Amino acid sequence: MSRMRAAIVGGSGYTGGELARLLLFHPEIELTQVASNSHAGQFIHSAHPNLRRLSTLRFCHPDDLTACDILFLCLHHGESMDVLTRYRYLAPRIIDLSADFRLRDPQLFQRWYGEEHRSAELLSEAVYGMPELYRAELAEATLVSGTGCMATAAILGLAPLYRSGLVDSEVPLVVEAKVGSSAGGAKPGSSSHHPERSGALRSFQPTGHRHSAELIQELGLLAGHGTAGLSQRVAFSATSVELVRGILVTAHVFVRENIDERTLWRVYRESYQREPFVRIIKERTGIYRYPEPKILAGSNFCDVGFELDAEQGRIVVMAALDNLMKGAAGNAVQSMNCMFGWDETLGLGFPGLHPV
Amino acid sequence: MSRMRAAIVGGSGYTGGELARLLLFHPEIELTQVASNSHAGQFIHSAHPNLRRLSTLRFCHPDDLTACDILFLCLHHGESMDVLTRYRYLAPRIIDLSADFRLRDPQLFQRWYGEEHRSAELLSEAVYGMPELYRAELAEATLVSGTGCMATAAILGLAPLYRSGLVDSEVPLVVEAKVGSSAGGAKPGSSSHHPERSGALRSFQPTGHRHSAELIQELGLLAGHGTAGLSQRVAFSATSVELVRGILVTAHVFVRENIDERTLWRVYRESYQREPFVRIIKERTGIYRYPEPKILAGSNFCDVGFELDAEQGRIVVMAALDNLMKGAAGNAVQSMNCMFGWDETLGLGFPGLHPV
Amino acid sequence: MSRMRAAIVGGSGYTGGELARLLLFHPEIELTQVASNSHAGQFIHSAHPNLRRLSTLRFCHPDDLTACDILFLCLHHGESMDVLTRYRYLAPRIIDLSADFRLRDPQLFQRWYGEEHRSAELLSEAVYGMPELYRAELAEATLVSGTGCMATAAILGLAPLYRSGLVDSEVPLVVEAKVGSSAGGAKPGSSSHHPERSGALRSFQPTGHRHSAELIQELGLLAGHGTAGLSQRVAFSATSVELVRGILVTAHVFVRENIDERTLWRVYRESYQREPFVRIIKERTGIYRYPEPKILAGSNFCDVGFELDAEQGRIVVMAALDNLMKGAAGNAVQSMNCMFGWDETLGLGFPGLHPV
Amino acid sequence: MSRMRAAIVGGSGYTGGELARLLLFHPEIELTQVASNSHAGQFIHSAHPNLRRLSTLRFCHPDDLTACDILFLCLHHGESMDVLTRYRYLAPRIIDLSADFRLRDPQLFQRWYGEEHRSAELLSEAVYGMPELYRAELAEATLVSGTGCMATAAILGLAPLYRSGLVDSEVPLVVEAKVGSSAGGAKPGSSSHHPERSGALRSFQPTGHRHSAELIQELGLLAGHGTAGLSQRVAFSATSVELVRGILVTAHVFVRENIDERTLWRVYRESYQREPFVRIIKERTGIYRYPEPKILAGSNFCDVGFELDAEQGRIVVMAALDNLMKGAAGNAVQSMNCMFGWDETLGLGFPGLHPV
Repeated sequence: MSRMRAAIVGGSGYTGGELARLLLFHPEIELTQVASNSHAGQFIHSAHPNLRRLSTLRFCHPDDLTACDILFLCLHHGESMDVLTRYRYLAPRIIDLSADFRLRDPQLFQRWYGEEHRSAELLSEAVYGMPELYRAELAEATLVSGTGCMATAAILGLAPLYRSGLVDSEVPLVVEAKVGSSAGGAKPGSSSHHPERSGALRSFQPTGHRHSAELIQELGLLAGHGTAGLSQRVAFSATSVELVRGILVTAHVFVRENIDERTLWRVYRESYQREPFVRIIKERTGIYRYPEPKILAGSNFCDVGFELDAEQGRIVVMAALDNLMKGAAGNAVQSMNCMFGWDETLGLGFPGLHPV
Repeated sequence: MSRMRAAIVGGSGYTGGELARLLLFHPEIELTQVASNSHAGQFIHSAHPNLRRLSTLRFCHPDDLTACDILFLCLHHGESMDVLTRYRYLAPRIIDLSADFRLRDPQLFQRWYGEEHRSAELLSEAVYGMPELYRAELAEATLVSGTGCMATAAILGLAPLYRSGLVDSEVPLVVEAKVGSSAGGAKPGSSSHHPERSGALRSFQPTGHRHSAELIQELGLLAGHGTAGLSQRVAFSATSVELVRGILVTAHVFVRENIDERTLWRVYRESYQREPFVRIIKERTGIYRYPEPKILAGSNFCDVGFELDAEQGRIVVMAALDNLMKGAAGNAVQSMNCMFGWDETLGLGFPGLHPV
Repeated sequence: MSRMRAAIVGGSGYTGGELARLLLFHPEIELTQVASNSHAGQFIHSAHPNLRRLSTLRFCHPDDLTACDILFLCLHHGESMDVLTRYRYLAPRIIDLSADFRLRDPQLFQRWYGEEHRSAELLSEAVYGMPELYRAELAEATLVSGTGCMATAAILGLAPLYRSGLVDSEVPLVVEAKVGSSAGGAKPGSSSHHPERSGALRSFQPTGHRHSAELIQELGLLAGHGTAGLSQRVAFSATSVELVRGILVTAHVFVRENIDERTLWRVYRESYQREPFVRIIKERTGIYRYPEPKILAGSNFCDVGFELDAEQGRIVVMAALDNLMKGAAGNAVQSMNCMFGWDETLGLGFPGLHPV
Repeated sequence: MSRMRAAIVGGSGYTGGELARLLLFHPEIELTQVASNSHAGQFIHSAHPNLRRLSTLRFCHPDDLTACDILFLCLHHGESMDVLTRYRYLAPRIIDLSADFRLRDPQLFQRWYGEEHRSAELLSEAVYGMPELYRAELAEATLVSGTGCMATAAILGLAPLYRSGLVDSEVPLVVEAKVGSSAGGAKPGSSSHHPERSGALRSFQPTGHRHSAELIQELGLLAGHGTAGLSQRVAFSATSVELVRGILVTAHVFVRENIDERTLWRVYRESYQREPFVRIIKERTGIYRYPEPKILAGSNFCDVGFELDAEQGRIVVMAALDNLMKGAAGNAVQSMNCMFGWDETLGLGFPGLHPV
């Protein structure tokens, strides 16, 4: 049987490169085109040196794209909503990795992104591409939105608690994300200049980060508030750390009443024991007792762990992932596998390295 | 006039080495002895290679220490309280950099350190060695306690808010510390083995960190609760990051009523405009808009900044320092300068490097 | 058809962990046993956290090993030669990753390793496990020796020049290796303590490195000198750099007469155009113009490049690899594929990540 | 007595920032002006955040510079020679940190820099600013040239051997430099983008590096060849490593006849035992047995060491320094101290940190 044809738009960036790598090795996919304005005509390994000798594909110009079975858009936020309709003529299935179709409510989009949504009518069609929450919907979807890298870690870490109704919503939810430099994209700038960025421990967005919006929406849905989102105060901060790939989210949740560790284990196991890409990491000994992105580079795992501070009624939730994999390209491929009804783990078997 | 004679006990570790460096260059001090069980007889540069050619001093055995004007103890937690009385015969002034004399209440010590305090009668004598809070007391002190490295950043970052009465104590205080590897000391182990520790983003103490106790005590005193400490819930978590020197503390504080940025500026300026080693860092542009430890290595600054999330009534407080300087040895030298009535900045002029 | 049973001795170290990862995913192999003295009884993911959920195998004690089709020995240098005979009863094929069976001449072993070889009679049987040089021999071999990580890079980088007869052997060959920390193994020590090893640029073996011996032997054979080895002076130095995985070898070779770049291209293409795991990297533009280990972590490639300084008759040869892959475990799996007559790339498809 | 007035042109780059830091703390200097085209009008700490609160100086425009006692030029190569004559009206002493006045022979300049020297008549006036070689000349100089950062390490490492006549000049000299990212300057670009530059081990100039020219000139003078330079073949290669500050040069020298380690110690001690900023580092035990830049950040030391491979007649020479200090700004301040007849160590006392 012939393989499905996939294409990538905006393929010279880091997410595009990671998608290309995954699709080139995917047993059901033929990567037919990778489009890039800036690199049109060059070999794809000119931008992605790890693909040397693995592909003779060249970047095409976006205007030269031809029909395919699934199209991945790796465009900047605000660009996808202007071109989406055009691309739907080319492909029956689209996964857009920008932030444009993550929020269901155009008001919420306007509030967090500071501009009106120019394709608001499509928002209700788009499925939030998180298989752990929307597996059934993905199987029917024609338009899927990639998820924010930090939001993915935070939502997967917190979903079991919000689903269970344990959270005291009178107390603010505090979410701290620590992020590597690849999350900032492939474009150089003064803050990513190595002498400045190396060894950084930099509060790049202490307040107002846009991934808050996804968090509020999805945790609100899980908590049963519908699309109105979480009413609880959500305090999200993001800090750059010395790392290229990887995100660690630490969240502080306060619970309504006394709970014990066994309850927490039950709640987390119910959510994740059958999930192929979420592992619960909580060990008594060893170096890697909690989730840690160091050993996840290249893997599609989101590792989730927790610690209970019973006296204060606090649960510290930790979630780690590779921002280019489970936080972007890997998660998109997993979503694609759901869309086509394939085994969800196809093309995503790499377990990560140790040590690295 | 002759210089004061200083000695160090436990001088082969990282804090001891940093103290030695500072005291060797201090204009009013003569470093006469550095004691170490493990290194007795060797040159001090055998443990501290940056001191090559700067000193011909050799480590002596602790039993061979002779009288001096000020003695610094760099011992493990739990050791100082057993030997302090003995060392007081040698020196009229002692600065103990362990955690043994930081807490005023022996019950609090027992609760956080899991053992009875064996010199509880000395606790009331000891001054918490933070010149910004106890300048006057230090001038009279004969026993000073060094402060915890993460606690120092957290307390200096939060002091203005607690002093001002703005904090809503019904909401928990969340404090996240990110720490470099030198805070773990000079002794190798599996978790500090480079292939495991490099690129780490490791939740080493999500709950129950002992520096919480200092925080609760000192912020409680500032808030007017006396030695009972803060009644507010304090949620402290510590994460290891890829860095050798440096700490960044991010704290999330919620306020009682609407405040604006001008008020915050006023509150912080009142606390720190005359402090030689606390800078308020909050800029509109540039790479280093908030406090960041990267540019503080070797300096005695604690940089403090804040961001207001007015809608949620949240203040994000950030504080950065070099854990071996303002978090340990530098702060001890500043305390010593206070004890002797010298200019507080003596021997602490190095501003840090950029880039580094 | 049933898969071949493989076992690992000394499986708790870094090379053992990498082998376990590769063998767990190998389509023709069933990993049946992983032995470790120190970890016997524990899950293999206790030492190799990246294997969590991928295997329920536990370490066994070396004494409990049972028969298998191929056995990998990951023991310290000097250990293998004492136990090899015993292990040959368990498996018809053995790959020993220590240095014990790399040299053909027991005198050479004694000179470089400072002790007599205690199984000298086996040296003539052992095949040096470098498929690029000994593909045919590997197909018949029952005892294969893994190759030294730095030696592998140096030999693959230099082989085309020595085979071609271009080298001026009157001039010394200078080989500089830069190495990441994982090459030092999993055992902590003071020089691998993160505060000391981080940011290192450390000449750990300016002279006398044992990998010189392999270089002299293999380049000598290629140059037609037989087992006497290279008569040319070989100046090998090794420097530790800030990196966990990866080696870059830079070699300076002087040629007998004027040559041009076209000749060099021809020489290198003849050697490597059909090799699945050696790429010639030499580009006019871009960031990754020459071989670089950064983008090779987890891959089995050895990237090789060169630059001609025609005026001086100097060729700078650069070769990069992942020391745990092409420098150890990956190369051993490639050798195993040769031994069984399988496609040489089986189980070795991961191309490396970018960026990382 | 009033202090000397110093000014910096091109003060917003990394060398300019380091100079500003040193001059602000120099006891005999008043830093009166720092000029920058791009930053004119802004506080100097806008570019150099470590100088916050240490100076209220603002960048001026180069056209607004007024007379001073000494002027430092931190311009790009090729710029200084066009403007030098103009600046000499402003200051009786100039230290130019570009490469424009390092070579005595305009032919040599043309060959290595690819353009004609446009102020060739000044070359004979300029003193190569290396106090260890030109102390007497610096005391009389009005125009001093800064030295290349890699060349400085290489020359200081090799000078004793060339001065002694031990070197076999029939064999090529191989010099390998490993360099941190700050040596590339403050301007961002794709190869310094953190995700690409982090963890790099990148052969950025395997052949043809311009610092070769300084090496050939200065070692030639030391060897008694006059300005014709070394006739020996010099093979210089430069590799970027993961580090912000620091250079390690490893050189391989072959000697004419058998020598022993005692001779080498004598040769090195004769050259350096009285030098304030050159230390001979060669120890039998410990982590830091050889020169290493890690512990030199911020210090003005050039650490020099060697190892003898007696059998091959090879000496491995290692030299380490901080490229912004002894490799640029620190060395310029030391030269200035010579020019004014001050104690050479003034303003250069910082010993470097450990660990860091």
